[in-house]
Amino acid sequence: MSRETSEQYPQYALRPIGRVESALHDPAAAPKQGDEGAPESTLVFVPEVEDGLRDLRPGADVLVLTWLHRGDRDVLAVHPRGDRTRPLTGVFSTRSPDRPNPIGLHRVRILSVDGTRIRVADLEALDGTPVLDVKPVLDPGTER
Amino acid sequence: MSRETSEQYPQYALRPIGRVESALHDPAAAPKQGDEGAPESTLVFVPEVEDGLRDLRPGADVLVLTWLHRGDRDVLAVHPRGDRTRPLTGVFSTRSPDRPNPIGLHRVRILSVDGTRIRVADLEALDGTPVLDVKPVLDPGTER
Repeated sequence: MSRETSEQYPQYALRPIGRVESALHDPAAAPKQGDEGAPESTLVFVPEVEDGLRDLRPGADVLVLTWLHRGDRDVLAVHPRGDRTRPLTGVFSTRSPDRPNPIGLHRVRILSVDGTRIRVADLEALDGTPVLDVKPVLDPGTER
Repeated sequence: MSRETSEQYPQYALRPIGRVESALHDPAAAPKQGDEGAPESTLVFVPEVEDGLRDLRPGADVLVLTWLHRGDRDVLAVHPRGDRTRPLTGVFSTRSPDRPNPIGLHRVRILSVDGTRIRVADLEALDGTPVLDVKPVLDPGTER
């Protein structure tokens, strides 16, 4: 079996489809998870993708994928939640924004839809965070 | 309020951290979701990220993020599950691999871990699919 090397993989270009508009500006003050006091936020999409948004409805829970652009891509182990009393843990067992591909995954509830502006609850992302994708939730047994 | 344009966003380079090794080679024959008969597969990681894997254990459910490299990035609406009797639906309300940033999200169970090779159940990704990230599952109420 040949040895894997990262050089054998092509890189892929992410093209953000929008951004987060939020009162959260300070990484140190932001909640670690959306259910820990995140404010309402707005997803502001580029007009090119508006047709893809047409079936999103208020009341639905969706997964929002973001690019955690402040993440350190060279980090492979962290103290969970920045708590140095907790043992160093491999990043793939954590939700740390520091990881090789800092993709954020957020479950949010849609509050309202106004064209390319979608208001959501419980999004812990900072203002200006690029949005990559929106998907239906992964609940087992739900047809998707 | 200024109008959004996609040109105002930088692009970001994804660097795959591994690939899927699977008996699934034919997109037409692949199940649409992992719980619809996907075979066992192996995630083969590049050695550079091995330290990030060290807390992944057999029996755990994790989320695997992939790059669906065969996806058509210009598609914004699809017939769900390729069924043309179903109405065209905005891609952000579907799990279609055709979408602006074709990131795949898969919930899988870890069967075994051997260094940079992780055997998993229920992964519907094709052989050779690039792997981007691994995260703990999003179950509400679970500390992450």
